[in-house]
Amino acid sequence: MSLDRVLAHIDNECDSALERLFQIVRIPSISADPAYRDDCRRAAEWCSSNLNEAGFTAGVRPTIGHPMVVGNYDGAGANAPHVLFYGHYDVQPIDPLELWTRDPFDPAVVDVDGEKQITGRGVSDDKGQLLTFVEAARAWIAETGGLPINVTVFLEGEEESASPSMIPFLTENADELKADVALVCDTNMWDRATPAISTMLRGLVYEDVVVHAASHDLHSGYYGSAACNPIHVLAAILADLHDETGRITIPGFYDGVPEVSAEQKAQWAELGFDEKAFFGGIGLSEPAGEAGYSTLEQIWSRPTAEVNGIIGGYTGEGAKTVIPALASAKISFRLVGDQDPETIRENFRAFVTERLPADCRAEFRSHGGDRAVSQPVDNPWVQKTRAALSSEWGRDAALIGMGGSIPVVTQFKTLLGMDTVLVGFALEDDRIHSPNEKYNLASFQRGTRSWARILAALAA
Amino acid sequence: MSLDRVLAHIDNECDSALERLFQIVRIPSISADPAYRDDCRRAAEWCSSNLNEAGFTAGVRPTIGHPMVVGNYDGAGANAPHVLFYGHYDVQPIDPLELWTRDPFDPAVVDVDGEKQITGRGVSDDKGQLLTFVEAARAWIAETGGLPINVTVFLEGEEESASPSMIPFLTENADELKADVALVCDTNMWDRATPAISTMLRGLVYEDVVVHAASHDLHSGYYGSAACNPIHVLAAILADLHDETGRITIPGFYDGVPEVSAEQKAQWAELGFDEKAFFGGIGLSEPAGEAGYSTLEQIWSRPTAEVNGIIGGYTGEGAKTVIPALASAKISFRLVGDQDPETIRENFRAFVTERLPADCRAEFRSHGGDRAVSQPVDNPWVQKTRAALSSEWGRDAALIGMGGSIPVVTQFKTLLGMDTVLVGFALEDDRIHSPNEKYNLASFQRGTRSWARILAALAA
Repeated sequence: MSLDRVLAHIDNECDSALERLFQIVRIPSISADPAYRDDCRRAAEWCSSNLNEAGFTAGVRPTIGHPMVVGNYDGAGANAPHVLFYGHYDVQPIDPLELWTRDPFDPAVVDVDGEKQITGRGVSDDKGQLLTFVEAARAWIAETGGLPINVTVFLEGEEESASPSMIPFLTENADELKADVALVCDTNMWDRATPAISTMLRGLVYEDVVVHAASHDLHSGYYGSAACNPIHVLAAILADLHDETGRITIPGFYDGVPEVSAEQKAQWAELGFDEKAFFGGIGLSEPAGEAGYSTLEQIWSRPTAEVNGIIGGYTGEGAKTVIPALASAKISFRLVGDQDPETIRENFRAFVTERLPADCRAEFRSHGGDRAVSQPVDNPWVQKTRAALSSEWGRDAALIGMGGSIPVVTQFKTLLGMDTVLVGFALEDDRIHSPNEKYNLASFQRGTRSWARILAALAA
Repeated sequence: MSLDRVLAHIDNECDSALERLFQIVRIPSISADPAYRDDCRRAAEWCSSNLNEAGFTAGVRPTIGHPMVVGNYDGAGANAPHVLFYGHYDVQPIDPLELWTRDPFDPAVVDVDGEKQITGRGVSDDKGQLLTFVEAARAWIAETGGLPINVTVFLEGEEESASPSMIPFLTENADELKADVALVCDTNMWDRATPAISTMLRGLVYEDVVVHAASHDLHSGYYGSAACNPIHVLAAILADLHDETGRITIPGFYDGVPEVSAEQKAQWAELGFDEKAFFGGIGLSEPAGEAGYSTLEQIWSRPTAEVNGIIGGYTGEGAKTVIPALASAKISFRLVGDQDPETIRENFRAFVTERLPADCRAEFRSHGGDRAVSQPVDNPWVQKTRAALSSEWGRDAALIGMGGSIPVVTQFKTLLGMDTVLVGFALEDDRIHSPNEKYNLASFQRGTRSWARILAALAA
């Protein structure tokens, strides 16, 4: 049995696989910050070399932003299925750095309550996850001389900064990238013991808003109460975004939001979601969102408006009595169903503008927008993948929703006509986008074994 | 006439006086930032040396914070009046540095629309202002061998950071510092042509508040809407501070706030306040404060609640989809009449705490609190000072209110039993506490001449 030999190979070579993960985590490929541009390029080059070494024909592809990496394997023959595997080599910023207990770019395996965890920025999102697939392919080729299906590996470096190069790149390289189905490893397991396929993803609209008032910062003693304070204006607008039931008040916001069916609610209820553990793990105790919806409904099926950042005036040590000239915020909206990103953006801007008093103006900046995605669950790719996952983990893989957004999944569908199967081995407590990001060693090793099984299953 | 010779001396020596001002402005004595601790000490030493050179017996006095400087002149004899002159050698922070058109610690005289302006941090608040007095004294001593009255010069280095050492220092040195009256040069002229004595000062309460929610920053996709967002909580609380008429909603806030008398309103109306110029100079057009009160009433006689700074979540370039663990704000309250600082602080903290949802807690930090001050206008010190100012400027000095706070004036009254005469030559458009602070050369030179006249007048 080829698969058994491949699985044994993965188990035997786990130390060298881990060393490869460490190598890529050590490269600080923060795509949102221009200071790390060269590091992003180095990360792309590492990914390309690694794919070539594993047995793909890979190269770095320049864009106007951070480069793409594409690696092809077509040795399975013209009649074999062809899948596109997508991942991203860029990572989130690391601030606040002082909250990290280890250097975010000096990965290690640490023991936490008897569980081995790999630490470092991007170790879960998405470097560890994407390597589960590449390591599975490496093991197949090393052990059997090839892969059971044809595979294109496609890695981007702008996932954490709104993917400005993605649409042009997909459009220009559609023939090369179009496959029978896409595989994406950027999602979670249901829990530590239960693998999952994510079938619903929320969309995303992200906006910067700056409220300008006086021409320069003012002394709050001389001008206080007489001069318009843009922090007050911004705070009042942000406070207005939700009513007392947690519902978002932007006109038209809920257009296109489907109610969750009783059947779906019942299926989710069967998952046995542990609300206490979910909130307890982040130091909270209860849902803070829309009244009348369960926590799973809130994070999987309801749209959101979240202020992701705010700044204005004096924020250093001590006291400074200033009325600032401006105040700004970053706001993201998670979308579901048929909510239209551009309509949401326009309505949000109108919502802000209508609330500005005399002497204030608002400046907006878009950081992208993508629709929500629902994937069909009855197609053979999902069924075969689910069976392979269930073999590895010894229990049925869950079909779940996901609160996050993976815009490229929408683009695969609209630009390349491809469905996507979303499989990931991250855990809810991986602290992605936060200090002390980790990826369980079990996620890495059994994730790799899972992909080895999926590659075999998809060939059948 | 000694005074004429002194005034001529000041005019002749204006370049060397300006050079001394440049020397002290070049020392970045930012008291709120511990990184500038040594610079604050250097500034104190410079002030002490300068006083000794001018003819005082001066020294640097250590405190647990930044040092005080005390210089004495008692050559006018036991029967002459004794005044305490107060100023401060520390300055505000300089951020945002990118908005300065010149290095804030490299002063220069620049020509702006035909007006000569001295540029640099602290050039108006308060290094230029305090030097008008010291230069006047220097000229008196240089030209006549002494001062017409006995003078103690008392300079602190913590005025911009809540003066933590002031009360202990005044208490321990009461005998040395108690004089017949205090003079303070940290206020404005009425306009470029009209000198002023400020007879009302607002008090100040300053608070930091941090709202804590989750134990660490969260991914807004996975947790969005379900997890409590402390930016939302803080924004809603800050938005609640004022009602739609601009009135502050903290319970009991207006206890002790006097209504302005019809007589006072009439006096202020006679000043011919140019509202259009006041707001036009800061890029605004109209008052934003309490409905039913004129701009002068708002800034002189009404209490305020101003958010001076806010920060939370991701505030760098680009987009980061985070729900932060905490968000914080700095809030100051200007007090009038008999408002009690500690009651205001307690009521504010209760106001915040009552509005916290489950899973949030607030952490508070005080940056001091002082009552408002009203000075009697019919005492001889004010009358003599007003006459001297009127001689220099060729028009009656205005008796005005002031929106800012000078806590030491309260402390002189309560701890030393001294009234204070507040005379200053700053202008509303000096951009104190803001980028591109300036002090008009005319303020510096005619301010010095004014003090020379006041010293003579107080001897009479």
